[in-house]
Amino acid sequence: MTDRIRLHYAPDNASLIIRLALEELGLPYDAALVDRAARAQEGPAYRAINPNGLIPAIETRHGAIFETAAILLWLDEAHPGALAPAPGDAARGDFLKWLIFLANTVHPTLRMRFYPEKYIGPDSAAHAALLAGTQADLTRQFDTLERHAGGVFGAADPTMIDLYLAPMLRWTALYPSGDCSWFNLSQWSALRALAQRVETRPSAIKAKRAEGLGETPFSAPRHATPPEGSAT
Amino acid sequence: MTDRIRLHYAPDNASLIIRLALEELGLPYDAALVDRAARAQEGPAYRAINPNGLIPAIETRHGAIFETAAILLWLDEAHPGALAPAPGDAARGDFLKWLIFLANTVHPTLRMRFYPEKYIGPDSAAHAALLAGTQADLTRQFDTLERHAGGVFGAADPTMIDLYLAPMLRWTALYPSGDCSWFNLSQWSALRALAQRVETRPSAIKAKRAEGLGETPFSAPRHATPPEGSAT
Repeated sequence: MTDRIRLHYAPDNASLIIRLALEELGLPYDAALVDRAARAQEGPAYRAINPNGLIPAIETRHGAIFETAAILLWLDEAHPGALAPAPGDAARGDFLKWLIFLANTVHPTLRMRFYPEKYIGPDSAAHAALLAGTQADLTRQFDTLERHAGGVFGAADPTMIDLYLAPMLRWTALYPSGDCSWFNLSQWSALRALAQRVETRPSAIKAKRAEGLGETPFSAPRHATPPEGSAT
Repeated sequence: MTDRIRLHYAPDNASLIIRLALEELGLPYDAALVDRAARAQEGPAYRAINPNGLIPAIETRHGAIFETAAILLWLDEAHPGALAPAPGDAARGDFLKWLIFLANTVHPTLRMRFYPEKYIGPDSAAHAALLAGTQADLTRQFDTLERHAGGVFGAADPTMIDLYLAPMLRWTALYPSGDCSWFNLSQWSALRALAQRVETRPSAIKAKRAEGLGETPFSAPRHATPPEGSAT
């Protein structure tokens, strides 16, 4: 294994977050498409990389790493200060707590909305209850993030948190299809500004092209039209 | 603010994980009881520390930190190598990916089981569907952890992951009351050995006394009988 990172991705999946980080850090990488239409992420070849069958994963000279936040932290540790306050900095705790809040609260809430059947089976009344609950949860979570923007995220220079949050704002606006009209990013002006800042960066311009995300993928998204692969 | 850490805790809450880590690291700290019986975690004083109203949080010379995994990582960064492979170590990616897996997958699954009404409202059929789904999820998650034990967790010397996982095994065995008979830790021999190793450490002996957890809190738990406060 060389030092070159291999990013296992599907367009407009959580791998987008890692792509943005790799581009921001200027690291060379190979993007290996996971064929979601063929459910390749659940097959034995991919599960040898991530036993949980989830995208993204990266392969490194030290083996495979999965879980979005783990990959972000691993990249951050190799490039201290580039996309986060460095360890030991007075703002490091703030960085870690909001990064983990995205990972263990906002991201799982989105997954429940997108894949209710994975959590509560096929019953449609239960799905409706879960959609309603997660909509209220996300609203509260975005309210909280809005109030705390301006330090370790939502400031002029992006951190790993900005790169994680901007795509999640996108997905909230797009999925699940038919149940997104409640979401109006202009309710949260700091988060909207964050989305607009991220989508104009060179890293995002490369990601937009690679994954077919359109011009304003975070502040005013439309569904992806990727040059290869499929988002779902 | 001095260098001394203040741990906001309730007995047998996720703050137990942080207590174990502080004890393992030999750090002096003050334990400040959050009065759950009075829902103090949802009041303005506590929300000034953690706006999400969740336990644990710590106060440090750099301000408040919340989210269990964030606190563990912050402590780890201040004591590199003590309870995890150090940054740059070939096993660091493994450490981060399994720590985050606990934080964003196992821990949220437990929360859904313990507080279904927070996710899907009051409907009891939806609760039953969520309990069934999360039981299947936890089984799969423990199977996965069992298969990967022996490296960055489940080895002779505990890491932050062991300290995080052992209490979660406890809570799976105890909550929600009346729906735990499915869980038999002896199904997962590596995880049982992990629980047994953690509960005999000096750190755990102090935690058992402070929070009333009994002799075998992780491998064969009973409900807590804390000297102060309440677990729920």
